[in-house]
Amino acid sequence: MHRRDFAKLSALALAATRLPAQSAEPKAKPIGFAAVGLGTISGIFSQGLLKADDAKLTAVVTGHPDTKGKAYTAQYDLAPGSVYTYDTYNTLRDNPAVDAVYIGLPNSMHMEYTVRAAEAGKHVLCEKPMAISSAECRRMIDACHAHKVHLMIAYRLWYDPTVARALELVKSGAIGQVQSFAGAFIGQQPTGAWRLNKALAGGGSIFDLGIYPLNAIRYIIGEDPSAYTAVVSTREKGPRFAEVEESVEWTMKFPSGIIASCRSSYGADGESRLEINGSRGFLVIAPAYGYDGMKLTGRIADDIIDYTATGRIPFQFTLEADHFADCIRKNKTPKTPGELGLADLESIEAIYKAAGAPLA
Amino acid sequence: MHRRDFAKLSALALAATRLPAQSAEPKAKPIGFAAVGLGTISGIFSQGLLKADDAKLTAVVTGHPDTKGKAYTAQYDLAPGSVYTYDTYNTLRDNPAVDAVYIGLPNSMHMEYTVRAAEAGKHVLCEKPMAISSAECRRMIDACHAHKVHLMIAYRLWYDPTVARALELVKSGAIGQVQSFAGAFIGQQPTGAWRLNKALAGGGSIFDLGIYPLNAIRYIIGEDPSAYTAVVSTREKGPRFAEVEESVEWTMKFPSGIIASCRSSYGADGESRLEINGSRGFLVIAPAYGYDGMKLTGRIADDIIDYTATGRIPFQFTLEADHFADCIRKNKTPKTPGELGLADLESIEAIYKAAGAPLA
Repeated sequence: MHRRDFAKLSALALAATRLPAQSAEPKAKPIGFAAVGLGTISGIFSQGLLKADDAKLTAVVTGHPDTKGKAYTAQYDLAPGSVYTYDTYNTLRDNPAVDAVYIGLPNSMHMEYTVRAAEAGKHVLCEKPMAISSAECRRMIDACHAHKVHLMIAYRLWYDPTVARALELVKSGAIGQVQSFAGAFIGQQPTGAWRLNKALAGGGSIFDLGIYPLNAIRYIIGEDPSAYTAVVSTREKGPRFAEVEESVEWTMKFPSGIIASCRSSYGADGESRLEINGSRGFLVIAPAYGYDGMKLTGRIADDIIDYTATGRIPFQFTLEADHFADCIRKNKTPKTPGELGLADLESIEAIYKAAGAPLA
Repeated sequence: MHRRDFAKLSALALAATRLPAQSAEPKAKPIGFAAVGLGTISGIFSQGLLKADDAKLTAVVTGHPDTKGKAYTAQYDLAPGSVYTYDTYNTLRDNPAVDAVYIGLPNSMHMEYTVRAAEAGKHVLCEKPMAISSAECRRMIDACHAHKVHLMIAYRLWYDPTVARALELVKSGAIGQVQSFAGAFIGQQPTGAWRLNKALAGGGSIFDLGIYPLNAIRYIIGEDPSAYTAVVSTREKGPRFAEVEESVEWTMKFPSGIIASCRSSYGADGESRLEINGSRGFLVIAPAYGYDGMKLTGRIADDIIDYTATGRIPFQFTLEADHFADCIRKNKTPKTPGELGLADLESIEAIYKAAGAPLA
């Protein structure tokens, strides 16, 4: 038995102790993923795959095959010929070890590489934000539909057990009628980062940070906002915010009457946080959007809530990949499909419009 | 020596250990306060006076002289003839033991009893909100000016040592350039409470709760907002919110470019909280608006902030009363003058207007 197969079996055995078995039949070959773009997030996703039940890294796509490509080949024991460049991307079509791609590219490239993957007959797990406009999202959905591949957006929060516990408490009615939300994700981006380049990022912090509370609130409520207000500001003068705004704060009102207040910034520090206010209690997730270490607190009637599900295991990226693998196996719609990504882009456009700063 | 004089001297001795002496001369007679309206807040204020250096409860004004009046007389050792009713309020003029009134009445009565106190030559410490409209605030300021008495609004936060520490950190530049704020104060009011009666309260939760983050942010920045957005909502149907909205969330933009996101509600539970986001760190006060137990946390560069100044001593109400006494002694403007209360009422009106729910 190959050393990695043994590690795989150990991971499966471990997994069996933490999750109910989804199938009695052993899986001969896990769902194979090609990581597209080998930045930080693809590295973390690939680490997550190492612990997956039914998903495995089988290829990479990179502009640096001789450095990054070789490093991934060694680290993930990739088969010969599993390193692709953007020029050879379309030939993924001919690799039966690749069932799906994981798009970890800058935002402005999500659409093109999703459409091309769909055309190659590969399923697509695409990072958030889904794209830089709602029009692009629609093209991605249409392409995946036309080519009969699944499309999932990597909203990893919904695969986190602490967040799952919060969602369960809200859905059970434990905090009474939900009245409102507050969400914030504030963190620095250094001068020159691609996320500050409008052409690559699509806009400011709402595309990378604000989208977390935006998506969280939409997902929990299960409604689309019917009205928005927003304000943007850039206090720091100089090159850092030459193309995108520094900070944005916005409100949303939902058809049910629920209201939400959100904030994101690339020019300040702050607590990453989601608060859910109900008629008989409230919940706070803080930190709210990390890869692990999420903490759930609050109060329900007279009971103090203080809950942290896990550390790194089960890891969000592992559960996310396994969920998509399961959707591919069973031909079912992911719980975070392209339509959810589209809805968030529509909201981002509405927020810029409300701020009087229309998306170019 | 009378027992209470002895207690007073002990308190002064204690005070001397915690505060620099403001004057070398002993004060023969502390500034005398008449508490107007004996609800919960006047009870807490009166307790605060017991520990003051230079302020003392010398009279009360109540609609229940035979019950509340007698209880206060016993508890605070009031001189005979120190219990007034609303009918005899104007005769406070003839009581030399009363230098100032403390207005702890429902919001809609602040203006009348402030103006009448000014006409009687008494200084006025008025609870927040200053009144139910900016027009009323202007009348109060004019009356106090015309009758040469001081007017201070009881924004007790500015007399809390934990909040003072936060303010000091912000002003020192420790968190860098201030970018934004988030403030929330959310708590239940029971059906039938006077704060849900529009005629008495002036409006919903922003008058009693939302005014805390509103005032805190204005005070820290030292600017008036130049633009507002707001959304109101009432999810609970039924008698509780027949007259005022359940929840309000709003944003403010200041001339400097600082933005703020605030929330208040009478129909939910939540964390009372103020976050200040700067370019090199952030601060969180939570709980933020209690009578004590405030906690200051955050991060400045790599340093974790975790600070709680005190428990009940020094007590906000004590320091607030001593500050007003000092202003009266030295004929100086309070740090929370009527103009600050007026500015907040102008903001409340602007917030309702932005929400499309103009103040009636």
